[in-house]
Amino acid sequence: MMATTKLIEYADAAADVRAVYDDIRATRKTEFINNFWKALAVNPQQLRRTWDAAKVVMAAGALDVLTKEFVYIAVSVANKCEYCIHSHTAAARAKGMTEAQYAELIAVIGMAHSTNGLVTALQVPVDEAFKV
Amino acid sequence: MMATTKLIEYADAAADVRAVYDDIRATRKTEFINNFWKALAVNPQQLRRTWDAAKVVMAAGALDVLTKEFVYIAVSVANKCEYCIHSHTAAARAKGMTEAQYAELIAVIGMAHSTNGLVTALQVPVDEAFKV
Amino acid sequence: MMATTKLIEYADAAADVRAVYDDIRATRKTEFINNFWKALAVNPQQLRRTWDAAKVVMAAGALDVLTKEFVYIAVSVANKCEYCIHSHTAAARAKGMTEAQYAELIAVIGMAHSTNGLVTALQVPVDEAFKV
Amino acid sequence: MMATTKLIEYADAAADVRAVYDDIRATRKTEFINNFWKALAVNPQQLRRTWDAAKVVMAAGALDVLTKEFVYIAVSVANKCEYCIHSHTAAARAKGMTEAQYAELIAVIGMAHSTNGLVTALQVPVDEAFKV
Amino acid sequence: MMATTKLIEYADAAADVRAVYDDIRATRKTEFINNFWKALAVNPQQLRRTWDAAKVVMAAGALDVLTKEFVYIAVSVANKCEYCIHSHTAAARAKGMTEAQYAELIAVIGMAHSTNGLVTALQVPVDEAFKV
Amino acid sequence: MMATTKLIEYADAAADVRAVYDDIRATRKTEFINNFWKALAVNPQQLRRTWDAAKVVMAAGALDVLTKEFVYIAVSVANKCEYCIHSHTAAARAKGMTEAQYAELIAVIGMAHSTNGLVTALQVPVDEAFKV
Repeated sequence: MMATTKLIEYADAAADVRAVYDDIRATRKTEFINNFWKALAVNPQQLRRTWDAAKVVMAAGALDVLTKEFVYIAVSVANKCEYCIHSHTAAARAKGMTEAQYAELIAVIGMAHSTNGLVTALQVPVDEAFKV
Repeated sequence: MMATTKLIEYADAAADVRAVYDDIRATRKTEFINNFWKALAVNPQQLRRTWDAAKVVMAAGALDVLTKEFVYIAVSVANKCEYCIHSHTAAARAKGMTEAQYAELIAVIGMAHSTNGLVTALQVPVDEAFKV
Repeated sequence: MMATTKLIEYADAAADVRAVYDDIRATRKTEFINNFWKALAVNPQQLRRTWDAAKVVMAAGALDVLTKEFVYIAVSVANKCEYCIHSHTAAARAKGMTEAQYAELIAVIGMAHSTNGLVTALQVPVDEAFKV
Repeated sequence: MMATTKLIEYADAAADVRAVYDDIRATRKTEFINNFWKALAVNPQQLRRTWDAAKVVMAAGALDVLTKEFVYIAVSVANKCEYCIHSHTAAARAKGMTEAQYAELIAVIGMAHSTNGLVTALQVPVDEAFKV
Repeated sequence: MMATTKLIEYADAAADVRAVYDDIRATRKTEFINNFWKALAVNPQQLRRTWDAAKVVMAAGALDVLTKEFVYIAVSVANKCEYCIHSHTAAARAKGMTEAQYAELIAVIGMAHSTNGLVTALQVPVDEAFKV
Repeated sequence: MMATTKLIEYADAAADVRAVYDDIRATRKTEFINNFWKALAVNPQQLRRTWDAAKVVMAAGALDVLTKEFVYIAVSVANKCEYCIHSHTAAARAKGMTEAQYAELIAVIGMAHSTNGLVTALQVPVDEAFKV
């Protein structure tokens, strides 16, 4: 796979892009900048918005950080985003996901895809009981 | 919305379908059978397989039942399954999801959709660091 | 549900649209024009192209007409097109689909969605043996 | 492409996984185990459930085995599952799919995607005539 | 259709939500607040982030506002988001989309869906010539 | 990536396929035939229909050719068609897309994916005001 745009390395980055890269490094306590940010640097404003949102949205809150990664993986699988599946599965492992948890996550994702397909094929009407 | 097949009520169900309905009622401790099962009864073997799998997959294990519902909702949203979104959001609330958790779940789902789209548009190559 | 555009009835249709409607009626041996064509009439050229292609593509050939409807339903379910699911499930029944066939079709669709999700979650590499 | 998990070879498999591999080999009359099962072995219960279901669902019944493969390919294309498209296209060829059949299958899949998109863009309301 | 959460009306909104509603009204020069924002108010921070981003992203720039609406419609159709299709088709009309433009937009969307399906079914390898 | 079918080169093509290749070359004023057409040649009639439609649909009309490419990219991203994203991003650049336009296109695509996900998760009901 190749990107549709040049990946911007730190050395080649303009000041606004470098500022985001610096914040990513400081927040994550690593020099490593993954390719997503280097590609998104094609639009420095979007890079800034996305990183600022990610910091807030993925931080521990009412849901813990690992649960958020599970949800992220689930969406990325259903959306068929190869990069996102790899990066968030790696992130989940880095945040402590056990292999037993991963095995169950896979099973729930498989189950949900199956029933999503069945429900859609059968066009099942929503039960009154589920309405807010 | 209307189903593509007749919903099978308990009174009209054959023995193999009734056996599943009985197990759903006993397991969930309620008389209520939601429309998904009544539609899936068009194929009694598939009804049995799906229910048997659901009981195992959605039970507490390495992941708790609420985390599993979050994952289910996430997949169902990305797969655009209206019925599944309503039924699993209702299930999550029934299992204790707070409004604060729901608000964060929504934010993670929105974030994941956004970066899934950005990554796909830019065709970002997977970093070596993410490989198993 | 409401369309994003006005449905064009025969009485209100321009000559190029009427010509397609006439051909639909003659080919299908019925006065009934379903809503898809009435909406697509917003672009008479697209209406003509789509109908001309449909006549050729959906006709009996190396695959029989019912097999083609099964494939159409399968794509429409995976693409979550409610209208298409209803219209092609009705078409399949009109062309002789039995309830036993429908029950198995549903099971294959459910199975495929499940393994599609599992394979994507696990990012399974394609076996050399499957290459042409 | 690389998997998100280690592919489990027969020599390294636990007894419950080996039992499924043995059944796959006996059922298919070949030593070959394709990567899907080796990846799914991350969850031996899910491996067992999926294989047991596949044997029943994909067997000849009211629909013949080749028709089931056509439906599987159709779902996998619409769900963008590269592995599934390759494995089931290969399976269809192994089960006798001719190139003429494949050419028509491709045309139906293309047609369905086109009208799914048109219908969705126009939000066409379901005709009363299609209701069960 | 019903939302999975209560729609927050202005009168019932907390200060942070009202501030966004006020900005929407001032920016759009209308009292009307559409349901998307009233539902998103379940998470006031997400409401704020989304509105702030929308103001920047959808404003005229290197692309004019109508072109941006066409792109928005195209994504929403492919993602099967009924609400989004209706709201952005209405927005495009409000911003001057002619029926001739709409007819061509529909044709391009139909064409893209068709070739997306064909390419995916055939697993066409990317030409070297397309690489950046 | 490998195709599921042999790519048909000009030298090996039958007369009906060569006629389309000749027209592609004449229309585009280049000897280059990209892989999509070589794969689609598995079904010469579908090749002809698709090329004939593409010439009409993608030509300048009420929408200019670059706007049509933006829409094509948007659909292809949401449909996760890697080949289509690369070929139409290349086409857009060849037709004059600036990097500033590309940066904004990416932002709109990201925004649309985000709100599509949020709307779907929240099952927002369509406002009366958006109805035609």
